[in-house]
Formats: sequence, structure tokens, C-alpha cells
Amino acid sequence: MKNKIFFVLSLLLCNASVWAADASADFKAAVQAGAKDFPAAIAAKDDARLGSMYAKDAIAFPPNSEMVNGREAIQNFWKGFIDEGFTAQIETVETESGGKLGIEVGKYTIVDAAGKTVDRGKYVVVWKKEDGSWKLYRDIWNTSMPATPPAN
Amino acid sequence: MKNKIFFVLSLLLCNASVWAADASADFKAAVQAGAKDFPAAIAAKDDARLGSMYAKDAIAFPPNSEMVNGREAIQNFWKGFIDEGFTAQIETVETESGGKLGIEVGKYTIVDAAGKTVDRGKYVVVWKKEDGSWKLYRDIWNTSMPATPPAN
Repeated sequence: MKNKIFFVLSLLLCNASVWAADASADFKAAVQAGAKDFPAAIAAKDDARLGSMYAKDAIAFPPNSEMVNGREAIQNFWKGFIDEGFTAQIETVETESGGKLGIEVGKYTIVDAAGKTVDRGKYVVVWKKEDGSWKLYRDIWNTSMPATPPAN
Repeated sequence: MKNKIFFVLSLLLCNASVWAADASADFKAAVQAGAKDFPAAIAAKDDARLGSMYAKDAIAFPPNSEMVNGREAIQNFWKGFIDEGFTAQIETVETESGGKLGIEVGKYTIVDAAGKTVDRGKYVVVWKKEDGSWKLYRDIWNTSMPATPPAN
């Protein structure tokens, strides 16, 4: 009987590495879905959907702004972006799952209401699982375009 | 004999969670050391020391620049920063270890050779263990200051 229990325990142990592999595939799938859904939600002017993609205790780090703390404030930030008529394209460059956190690196392009590209840059998103779903947890980006010379 | 082996195995299992706690304390200590060493290396104009704090396959994401890939290129980026006479102060706001990756959120201030604050902003660093030591793996920051109006 004891041996049977230990046999089951060993099987569970063997499965632990399988779970780890699954967790990684699971994360990649979440990032791939996010890369489609995020720009689509902006295009649909659906700030509630954007908010729902962030963890409750997420922080966003927009350039020229202090940190934006929490899902509600972040949703409000994106509402402002949408209201200005901007849309965005994103391209995931890499994903890496480190257990309970995962990271995504990518590139973005921002287009204004007239269809003109006003910014292109790069981002790092730290994802975290909340209630069984991967959510954006730390979201930071900056421009790759040359600095604007100061007005004088 | 078998039961002895399984007893040892169970002890190892119990230790796994203890290791996890140690890994987290270990990470926090590395971040605390980095928060001192990084600005000190800049002040000492020691770009080699800065380079050694990054993982071999690190990526830095400076504003107004494409991604900077690899330790050598990142060290060269900081050499340029040092040669311009800039120094930096950093303040860690939070750390979180997720197993093989850890994240640090913080704030920075950049001071020019004349002692004038030319930028203040925020950063996210993803750390990773390389050969048993925590290294900066993904390093991205942006300004918290208002946007410069375009020259016209």
C-alpha cells in the first residue's frame, strides 16, 4: 500500500515538469491572443475591454506621465488615448515564462485619426496570472523615434 | 530501504518551498546591491562594471533608440552616457521574484555635468539568474516629465 502511494507520488512528481511546459505554452497563447485583442479593443473604442486585460493591481508607465496605478486608472488612461482618435499596432518580438510571471517584448506603432504614424517604439510587459488567467501586470513602453529638439 | 529513499525524497520536497523563499530574499538582496552599485559605477565612469551587471543576452530599451542587444552593446551605450558627463540616481519602488525571473520597478533622476537635473522618470527591470548570479536581463525606462513641445 505504501509503495502504491509513493508510486502515485512519483507520477505526480514526473507530471510537475509537464505542467511547467504547459504553463509556458499557456502563457504564449495568452500573449498571442493579447497581441490581437489589444489593438482590436482600441480600434473598437472599447476601454472596458482594455481594462479587463490588466491585473487589478497592474501598473502602466506611459512616457511623460507618472506611474498609472491599478486597473481602473489604466482603463481611464486608454480611454483618453481612444478619445484622441489614436489606434495602435503591436508586434510581439519574444515571450518568456518564468513561472508565476511571464515577460513579453514587442514593438508598437501609433497612428492618429488622419492615418498618420505619430509614434513607433518598443515595450516590455510583465504578465501575471490572476484568478487563473494571464493579465498585463507591468506595462512600459518608449519611443524609438529620434528626440524632438527643444523649442526655443 | 525503499521507505527510507521515499522519506528522503519527501524531505527534499518539503525543502523546495524553503528554497523558493531563499530565492526571493536572494533576489531582493541583489536588487538592493544593484541600486547602490549602478549609480556608483556611473559616477566612477566604470562602464565595464556596468556591463558586467547585465546578462550576456540582455536587452536595454533606451528612449529615442532602437533596442540595444547584448552586454557589449549595452556597455557601449552607458559609455556614451558617462562620456556626456551624466550621472544618475535610482530608487527601487518594488521587487517581485517569480522563480527564474524577478522584476524591479523604480524611479530615476539624471543629472548633467553642471549638476542640473535633466530628466526624471521610471523604469522596469526584469532580472534573470546567469551562472548563479542575478543579472539585469530586460531594462526599460521612460521620462515622467511633460512632453517637450515640438519646435516650429
